[in-house]
Amino acid sequence: MTVHPKLQPRSPVPSDIEVSQQIVSEVGLLPIADLASEAGLEPDEVIPWGFSKAKVQLKTTLDRLKHSPDGNYIVCTGINPTPLGEGKSTTTIGLAQALGAILNKKSFACIRQPSQGPTFGIKGGAAGGGYAQVVPMEEFNLHLTGDIHAITAANNLLAAAIDTRMLHEDSQSDEALYKRLCLSGKPFPPVMKKRLVKLGIDPNKSPEDLTAEERAKFARLDFAKETITWQRVLDTCDRHLRKVTVGKGQTIQPRGTVKGETPREEHIRETGFDITVASEIMAVLALANDLPDLREKLGNMVVGYSKAGEPITSDDLGCGGALTVLMKDALLPTLMQTVERTPVLVHAGPFANIAIGNSSIVADKLALKLAGEDGYVVTEAGFGADIGMEKFFNIKCRESGLKPKCAVIVATVRALKMHGGGPPVSAGKPLASEYKEENIPLVTAGCSNLVKHIQNAKKFGVNVVVAINQFKTDTAEEMNAIRDASLEAGAFDAVVSNHWAEGGKGAEALGHAVIMACKANDETNFKFLYDLNSPIREKVETISKEIYGADGVDFSELAEQQIRQYESSGFGNLPICIAKTQYSFSCDPKAKGVPKGFRIYVREIRSCVGAGFLYPICGDIMTIPGLPTRPGFYDVDIDTSTGQVLGLF
Amino acid sequence: MTVHPKLQPRSPVPSDIEVSQQIVSEVGLLPIADLASEAGLEPDEVIPWGFSKAKVQLKTTLDRLKHSPDGNYIVCTGINPTPLGEGKSTTTIGLAQALGAILNKKSFACIRQPSQGPTFGIKGGAAGGGYAQVVPMEEFNLHLTGDIHAITAANNLLAAAIDTRMLHEDSQSDEALYKRLCLSGKPFPPVMKKRLVKLGIDPNKSPEDLTAEERAKFARLDFAKETITWQRVLDTCDRHLRKVTVGKGQTIQPRGTVKGETPREEHIRETGFDITVASEIMAVLALANDLPDLREKLGNMVVGYSKAGEPITSDDLGCGGALTVLMKDALLPTLMQTVERTPVLVHAGPFANIAIGNSSIVADKLALKLAGEDGYVVTEAGFGADIGMEKFFNIKCRESGLKPKCAVIVATVRALKMHGGGPPVSAGKPLASEYKEENIPLVTAGCSNLVKHIQNAKKFGVNVVVAINQFKTDTAEEMNAIRDASLEAGAFDAVVSNHWAEGGKGAEALGHAVIMACKANDETNFKFLYDLNSPIREKVETISKEIYGADGVDFSELAEQQIRQYESSGFGNLPICIAKTQYSFSCDPKAKGVPKGFRIYVREIRSCVGAGFLYPICGDIMTIPGLPTRPGFYDVDIDTSTGQVLGLF
Repeated sequence: MTVHPKLQPRSPVPSDIEVSQQIVSEVGLLPIADLASEAGLEPDEVIPWGFSKAKVQLKTTLDRLKHSPDGNYIVCTGINPTPLGEGKSTTTIGLAQALGAILNKKSFACIRQPSQGPTFGIKGGAAGGGYAQVVPMEEFNLHLTGDIHAITAANNLLAAAIDTRMLHEDSQSDEALYKRLCLSGKPFPPVMKKRLVKLGIDPNKSPEDLTAEERAKFARLDFAKETITWQRVLDTCDRHLRKVTVGKGQTIQPRGTVKGETPREEHIRETGFDITVASEIMAVLALANDLPDLREKLGNMVVGYSKAGEPITSDDLGCGGALTVLMKDALLPTLMQTVERTPVLVHAGPFANIAIGNSSIVADKLALKLAGEDGYVVTEAGFGADIGMEKFFNIKCRESGLKPKCAVIVATVRALKMHGGGPPVSAGKPLASEYKEENIPLVTAGCSNLVKHIQNAKKFGVNVVVAINQFKTDTAEEMNAIRDASLEAGAFDAVVSNHWAEGGKGAEALGHAVIMACKANDETNFKFLYDLNSPIREKVETISKEIYGADGVDFSELAEQQIRQYESSGFGNLPICIAKTQYSFSCDPKAKGVPKGFRIYVREIRSCVGAGFLYPICGDIMTIPGLPTRPGFYDVDIDTSTGQVLGLF
Repeated sequence: MTVHPKLQPRSPVPSDIEVSQQIVSEVGLLPIADLASEAGLEPDEVIPWGFSKAKVQLKTTLDRLKHSPDGNYIVCTGINPTPLGEGKSTTTIGLAQALGAILNKKSFACIRQPSQGPTFGIKGGAAGGGYAQVVPMEEFNLHLTGDIHAITAANNLLAAAIDTRMLHEDSQSDEALYKRLCLSGKPFPPVMKKRLVKLGIDPNKSPEDLTAEERAKFARLDFAKETITWQRVLDTCDRHLRKVTVGKGQTIQPRGTVKGETPREEHIRETGFDITVASEIMAVLALANDLPDLREKLGNMVVGYSKAGEPITSDDLGCGGALTVLMKDALLPTLMQTVERTPVLVHAGPFANIAIGNSSIVADKLALKLAGEDGYVVTEAGFGADIGMEKFFNIKCRESGLKPKCAVIVATVRALKMHGGGPPVSAGKPLASEYKEENIPLVTAGCSNLVKHIQNAKKFGVNVVVAINQFKTDTAEEMNAIRDASLEAGAFDAVVSNHWAEGGKGAEALGHAVIMACKANDETNFKFLYDLNSPIREKVETISKEIYGADGVDFSELAEQQIRQYESSGFGNLPICIAKTQYSFSCDPKAKGVPKGFRIYVREIRSCVGAGFLYPICGDIMTIPGLPTRPGFYDVDIDTSTGQVLGLF
């Protein structure tokens, strides 16, 4: 076993990129083969991807370890975020460092690959920060191992397939379409057989044997244009792509019309782009249990409905196989390390406000097997616990069958002051004195937000540990106020943690508390918030009332219509993945603390039938963010003599 | 040195993916470290990327070898392509196999990363085929090492930056804009200093010191909307994105107007998407000489003009550094191997019809140094020699300073028959008998196309070797007819090659001919077709008349106006990269052979100031292709029990 050089934190703590570059150049990374070996992986289970990253062979590893017991499963989440930052990723990493490098447990952090949108938009990586981060942070925050790029490619191939198919259907006769779709003299490929079965046609027939009626049924998907919910994606904050008109200048000769006599028609459509991390394929990646499940889910994605109201899937378009081929490497989690050389699995994507925003099931499963009975896996559920954690329990744990033993909720004195009524904070303006000086009443008032999250977590039957993520201006009295409020609300423990400045050593007490909480946990208490078989409307209402504290839910006419569509298509029993602002329990980002007397407005409900949930979009939330006047990219450059990245954070 | 297991070709030759999977499973890949070592790379010059690919550390390797002599530089190109396939990539690989595995020379093939557009669209990879291909072909044809994805990300970040900047400029006062762009109390970052210098403002001033007038000049790029030529990109055949309206629903309060009194305005714009491989950033990757040059070129890209007619660059938008950071790994060529374990460098992108379509300068330079004086580097210049080879000589060699010794022009009996007036060929229909039986008159007539390409290549002062890429139905008489016509046209040699069926052994004679041609070549004869200082119009005319055989060139009004803009902006002395159909010397894809009495129509001229060329778009050519009714993705799937890719080609 390698002797780990001790982390020597500097004071004051340098910028995140400086810490990362300091670790790489002074301490050195643990070679990826050694990292893998210490993590319990065999050499043939690791695919190197540069010097600091590796993909893990999922099937080989899980097959080998299938009889091993799982480690302790911990979800790390937070209060509703504020511009002051709470440090959920930093705490996830710091806690894993404490458990692994300080308390000598087998320990894994499972975190999400950051989106390049925020990386170059409003400054902020997702590698953690200070002395609790994943290194090298440039590698982590840029392309990583290409998973998000693979999703962009797959998503947009399917989008192109939809518009192209409509174009060809709008201009070709049934027979012409059928002849082009089926290669003469060749049998149906497997993906077409799946469609034949769905249509009730014998899949063993050869293309020549179908009747004219069967041919028409097979060849014509017959999209009802306005039902198409599949959007294009980019991993860029490009607000001008929210709503676009596509197909301009694409003209067709409508089928059944006579060339010359009937003018050609433009083949345009209104649609939009989402940020890649909010796409259904990202959710499929987060929720797939293995490669066969990935193939199944990608093939089952419903992109729209036929004029007769039948759902049309990516496999109906012949695209599910190609999507899986594009995603096969992305299914393998990426192994990296913390500044204290403990293992990290990076997988799936962020944005719990507009996506599931959780690390993947396969990364968690892999980590739990590698950690083993006495080991610990800290997985991150982004943004506030009202969205990230709720989705973790109700969607992800339901799909995986895994039971967490402890929820860590991260809070800071400064953020709670804001929830308690502290003045607004905006970039570029000096911070108000309330945030820099002791102010117990503000902290106490703000604890209401934390308390509600603790109560919410306890509804799922897990022990809750509050991590008070320390900042240098915090006073002992302020931190005590948080601890008192937490314990009173039923938290198992509430501990001050200083991993940002000190690394794992600073989170030692938190690590101890988490170990105790896991030991004290009774897994049989674990339960979901709602029954899948309840009506869609009721499930949305349960989340809104129980978790957000809303008085009720209003559905737009479009949403009502979609509910009817989904229930009649047999998708009524899917869990719910709500898109709403992360800044408040309500839909109003300005409503801090614990807002009362509000209702949730559901604008539309998209379906992610492949990923396995319904996706209500609430309030003004946008599914692709914009760039500010001065985007983060202004400060990013490269030293062309050394190749070193400058100014990333 | 590793003993190479001899290639054992099967007959009949299996599908490309079967050959690739046979090589990987039966023969085994040469481990990447051994491949690198045999290629002459030191261990620290190679970054593993999975088991079958590695990135090569450009600077370290070129610094070490800077005093070594270059190898022999060979460009491989072809006649105008037909649906029958000519096998330029296959010949590039087969020739490199012959030189390396059979004739025991140091040999490298430099080929381009394929676009996922055609991979999933109209069937066709770019790994070569049969027993002359790069393996594993799935790895090659899918994400490779992510270079194209990096380009998509970089291109679209810049596109978002443009529209966002216009939005903010349209709604904010000079002072508000300036205050947001400059962080209070902080100095200008380097990229902003570059803009200050351009504006004639002392870059050592701090943001507070600028006068109101200077602030306005600095903060306001003042785009003339209609001059923006920067498009968004995707590596997908998505014809509905050719023309799009963006910004729908994005409203602004126009600056200088009163909220409430003046209604908000929609901030929409007409624009479009190109396929990623046709983007300027791909051209920058192909033409950059090193990292500092990459940074320079990415910063100098002109995206549009101000209302005063001044060019606006990506560095003016503060984006050049971030683009370089996104592209830093992409600048490193990817090392792979052929079925006969000879080294291949994969870099930059295809589509010489709508892009430069050449492998990169850095890959070629690296290969030439690694090959050394007695070694051979075969680089591919895509599509017909009229576009791929012309751009190779006039743009790429001019930028790199490298001098090729030999041009290999690939032709097949069947394709020449089509150029000679053979019947049309379309997918799904049986092939006409003319192509399956001996027909000397058709071959002889078709040789006109080949002869014109030979004559064109000789204008650049290099020796020409014709590779007659053999197909099983070809007769000796037919092949002799090609050989005779080639020699008469001044080819150094013309050789039948059967690498598709036999691997390097089948291209042994071609290898010999190429070696002799290189030995006989006098580098001092090498010359460009046009002088950079000629007027733009004249350069386009020279290429059109000399290479295409056109009577002249017509410019649209838009093109005329762009010429005036470029000449007044100082871009008049850039070389020309024409976008036109690859299927004919003319702009009419149906005009086979050597068309006469035609003119070239220039629809518009885009500028690629960063990459360093002007980009006239001629005839009906589209800069993003479409998908057919039955796209290639129908046959692609995965065996979920083994993870093996099925049906890719």
